Amino acid sequence: MNMTEIEKLVEQQAIERMMFDYSYALDMNQPDTLAALFVEDCEVSYAPNFGATGMEAYKKTLEGIGTFFRGTSHHNSNICVDFVSAAEANVRSIVLAVHRYTKERPDGILYGQYFDTVVKVDGAWKFKRRELRTTMTTDYHVRAANAIGRAD
Amino acid sequence: MNMTEIEKLVEQQAIERMMFDYSYALDMNQPDTLAALFVEDCEVSYAPNFGATGMEAYKKTLEGIGTFFRGTSHHNSNICVDFVSAAEANVRSIVLAVHRYTKERPDGILYGQYFDTVVKVDGAWKFKRRELRTTMTTDYHVRAANAIGRAD
Amino acid sequence: MNMTEIEKLVEQQAIERMMFDYSYALDMNQPDTLAALFVEDCEVSYAPNFGATGMEAYKKTLEGIGTFFRGTSHHNSNICVDFVSAAEANVRSIVLAVHRYTKERPDGILYGQYFDTVVKVDGAWKFKRRELRTTMTTDYHVRAANAIGRAD
Repeated sequence: MNMTEIEKLVEQQAIERMMFDYSYALDMNQPDTLAALFVEDCEVSYAPNFGATGMEAYKKTLEGIGTFFRGTSHHNSNICVDFVSAAEANVRSIVLAVHRYTKERPDGILYGQYFDTVVKVDGAWKFKRRELRTTMTTDYHVRAANAIGRAD
Repeated sequence: MNMTEIEKLVEQQAIERMMFDYSYALDMNQPDTLAALFVEDCEVSYAPNFGATGMEAYKKTLEGIGTFFRGTSHHNSNICVDFVSAAEANVRSIVLAVHRYTKERPDGILYGQYFDTVVKVDGAWKFKRRELRTTMTTDYHVRAANAIGRAD
Repeated sequence: MNMTEIEKLVEQQAIERMMFDYSYALDMNQPDTLAALFVEDCEVSYAPNFGATGMEAYKKTLEGIGTFFRGTSHHNSNICVDFVSAAEANVRSIVLAVHRYTKERPDGILYGQYFDTVVKVDGAWKFKRRELRTTMTTDYHVRAANAIGRAD
């Protein structure tokens, strides 16, 4: 891979910014902005049987965010970027996601790990693959989960 | 704007550091250190009718932190910096702020978005404008809130 | 200290990555990976009378993580790095750590500050000293705590 240390810093920051824009669009209930952060042939897995292959399917998973939640807050941290090339990277990060439901029920809290593959297309980093693994949850509406694989 | 990519990285890190110093001073109950991170003609809005115009007014908002809270913890993340010039930037970020009260009552939790304008004065980044928008709260003592403007 | 701004950026990112790897190994229950992030003559203080001097003692503190917790999630943020030399730095950061116990009891939450001294050995940053100061806790199993020294 022919990236200088500086190029890696610049691109890592651009990748992080894209991830923060994802969370912001999610918390602001802007599904079109969210979808634009994914490539057409994206693969998304939030849990077994809860995800999407391709943009059209992904957009369907975003329906109802506005009415199902009164509010959400997605806190991203511990972002680790490994470049495969100047236009592709694997990213591991964690998220604290708090969900306030429209229905009267306790806030759903998700402690998760994201494993992403991001690609640079026409100068912009986008998600090619986004997999959420669930460390643990509290009062969360999604019961199924991709395991993190914690050692016994 | 005549900033190289490297200059932007260096200055963004300096801005982030200043934001972390703000949270540290807040959690350590050091109001003088906090105040020194703002310019004299600062504008601060934590909520409608809860903020300050100018340093003297801002210092008044800091009175009582030491006695009102037994402890606080301010976790900043998702920091996005957009430079206006080499000496001014707009910053969007989010915060998880947990407040333990001196009075016997449940911890107050704030999930918020900061919209800041920071300026570089004599080599140091400072807040010129700090606006907190409230995503949601739990058991928080401040009832009023600047809305984030989440789409319906 | 003879570090350029770029070198500082590169090394800070490497230090942050090491800290994130620590949290990941902890949440994945990988004590050997954790231990490898410390130098042989490390000093660790999680609380008064809860810590270690030297690698062998540190490894003992890691025993039982797998059985005591069903899961943990360590969210690091507000990382501030001050270089002492190109091979040593002092780091202040904060952590939100959520602990789910094997026993039936509420999650233990720790809001803390880390004060670390990290050193670069054979190209890799490692902890030489790690001190946790406790801002506050909720339902946490560790009763003793290094105080943060919040002003009255």
